[in-house]
Amino acid sequence: MDNLFADRMNNVHKSFIREILKVTEDPEIISFAGGLPNPKSFPVEEIEKAVSKVLARNGDEILQYSTTEGYLPLREYIAERYSKKGLSVDADEILITNGSQQAIDLVSKVFLNKGDKILVENPTYLAAIQSFGLFEPEFKSVPLLEDGVDINAFQRILDENEIKLFYSVTNFQNPTGITYSKEKRQKLAEILKDENTVFVEDNPYGEIRFMGEDIPPVKSYLDTTVLFGSFSKIVSPGMRLGWIVANEEIMEKIIIAKQASDLHSNYFTQRVVYQYLIDNNVDEHIEKIKKMYRGQRNLMVSIIEEYFPEDVKYTKPEGGMFLWVTLPEGLSSMDLFDLAIKENVAFVPGKAFFTDGSGYNTLRLNFSNSDEEKIEEGIKRLGNAIYELMENK
Amino acid sequence: MDNLFADRMNNVHKSFIREILKVTEDPEIISFAGGLPNPKSFPVEEIEKAVSKVLARNGDEILQYSTTEGYLPLREYIAERYSKKGLSVDADEILITNGSQQAIDLVSKVFLNKGDKILVENPTYLAAIQSFGLFEPEFKSVPLLEDGVDINAFQRILDENEIKLFYSVTNFQNPTGITYSKEKRQKLAEILKDENTVFVEDNPYGEIRFMGEDIPPVKSYLDTTVLFGSFSKIVSPGMRLGWIVANEEIMEKIIIAKQASDLHSNYFTQRVVYQYLIDNNVDEHIEKIKKMYRGQRNLMVSIIEEYFPEDVKYTKPEGGMFLWVTLPEGLSSMDLFDLAIKENVAFVPGKAFFTDGSGYNTLRLNFSNSDEEKIEEGIKRLGNAIYELMENK
Repeated sequence: MDNLFADRMNNVHKSFIREILKVTEDPEIISFAGGLPNPKSFPVEEIEKAVSKVLARNGDEILQYSTTEGYLPLREYIAERYSKKGLSVDADEILITNGSQQAIDLVSKVFLNKGDKILVENPTYLAAIQSFGLFEPEFKSVPLLEDGVDINAFQRILDENEIKLFYSVTNFQNPTGITYSKEKRQKLAEILKDENTVFVEDNPYGEIRFMGEDIPPVKSYLDTTVLFGSFSKIVSPGMRLGWIVANEEIMEKIIIAKQASDLHSNYFTQRVVYQYLIDNNVDEHIEKIKKMYRGQRNLMVSIIEEYFPEDVKYTKPEGGMFLWVTLPEGLSSMDLFDLAIKENVAFVPGKAFFTDGSGYNTLRLNFSNSDEEKIEEGIKRLGNAIYELMENK
Repeated sequence: MDNLFADRMNNVHKSFIREILKVTEDPEIISFAGGLPNPKSFPVEEIEKAVSKVLARNGDEILQYSTTEGYLPLREYIAERYSKKGLSVDADEILITNGSQQAIDLVSKVFLNKGDKILVENPTYLAAIQSFGLFEPEFKSVPLLEDGVDINAFQRILDENEIKLFYSVTNFQNPTGITYSKEKRQKLAEILKDENTVFVEDNPYGEIRFMGEDIPPVKSYLDTTVLFGSFSKIVSPGMRLGWIVANEEIMEKIIIAKQASDLHSNYFTQRVVYQYLIDNNVDEHIEKIKKMYRGQRNLMVSIIEEYFPEDVKYTKPEGGMFLWVTLPEGLSSMDLFDLAIKENVAFVPGKAFFTDGSGYNTLRLNFSNSDEEKIEEGIKRLGNAIYELMENK
């Protein structure tokens, strides 16, 4: 049997995070390993009302097959929300996907031949490595600084390689929490204007900015950018609704890829989410999420400040769900993981987010899905584990 | 830009059916072109009750991210339903997909290298050609007889080619309505036992047998068979819930491919459909669908008998949603389409379902989504168009 499987299956393995999450299912363990929104933020009652409304009015229709692009009023709603934020897009430039994870799959289908070069941040979103990996590209990586990628390194890599896609999470990146500055976005757009490289801008966390000012997406500076969005962090991840924004030429191909992949995304849920969006004050709802996450992020930062050794570095994200820790050189976050589990606290070792095998001394902490008590206790325990690691060194 | 797209995009085009469906949106046109279940069969009220129940009890949980394999009780339900019908499978051998269309995508990912040979029926399901096509295989086709593929031709093709996958819709095939006999299923299993070829058994219509006796799936004779199922025809297609049954070795790879593709299928809907299934008598519901489709199929057959020229051949399916018409040699169903549209009746010309360019004189008629009045009037009009086509010849 084994020789029957496609070559691409050698490139991907069961998610490392997934395996870690199994370890952390023990209720005794305080886990900062996951990447889940806080379920307290889910609008359960409002969703129930929306379901009743759409089923009562259009039951037959919303249970039927539908169009590949997705429900038009929902796409119009998304387009309008962008235009309020200064990005002008047409509903025809939007296609509904199964979360933004499927957007990666569709863009891979549309652009990647085996062996094509794709540039990712170092570190980058783990599930993107997996998803792109199925299409057997050659990964190149560019260092990520505090305000986005290292522009000189970026330019050099582009000069030396034919890069088909550059994949980036520009706001509150998973895993680092880093956000691209406006200047860096503009600079990247300027460079890419003259290159045969598509900017793939993944933005699942952009709505969850709880500090500082919104920055326009790269898409607003560079038309060929393919932009991803998602309802996972503002409504519900279990409903698996995201979208792709792309210009007409690219969208035409994406529609074909989507149709071949699964015909269309869950129509019932599209109608429910649309009804929810128009019947409720979404901005108020998002404000609640922000308030919650801001509090959790602030608490985590302050406990880290107090309980971690001074030469441990960490990011202070202005939004999103993750915070990134760098241990002093020579210390391994995998070793730390073993010590931490003994203290009943868990995180994701950072190595998995690097395509070049580096990052052994880094780790990701999720702050969105733990209440204050757990954050306080868990970070203290993690601090103990770090001190222990340093002593054993 | 154009040179940036992947080679695979040259293999697939916007669905021909999709374009035809646009033509037939005119409410004056009686359309047998679509492939939709009858919306009268959707359990709208029961779904609403199920939603209220699961949201009230487990709101936070069902809106959260979930496992790649799908909701375990739902997979157990599916396994149990199979075992009642004589196929013993474990819930771990089942993964929930976005309709069975995504099952094709996942199986392609797991098995197909570019240039690998895949064998399909001639004619075969159009969207399968599209979905497999994205993985750039070489298509081989085998003639479809009244009781399944031509076994001699099948054996010869296997002798002369390394076939990675054989894809087949074994019950009430789309487009022909043809069902494999028990003998043919056993014979295929026997042949494939000694071959390095995976049988991909797509069975979206199996539950809708409105005449004759159930026949066990090929999966029950051949363990390496990968079997697809779907809730689209018995609950709701808009909810996009299907599944894959595969043995442990294959399932391990399918889980990896699913995770990379979209993490997991809509969890909210999985919970809703599960609740619907356990709170209602599903067999009674399916019985209603069967009764409806049997009546529509019988009427269509009887009107054809009366109003079509005698040398027009057609299938008499024992289930499913389609009936297949073969015009006398020399007559083109594309020409017929133009005449039919003038008579305000539509169908799908059969050519698109053939991978070898044949089938110019065939056409597909859908009977599930038209009421009796429309079937009677529409088939009469189509009969007129056929007579006109013959006279103009």
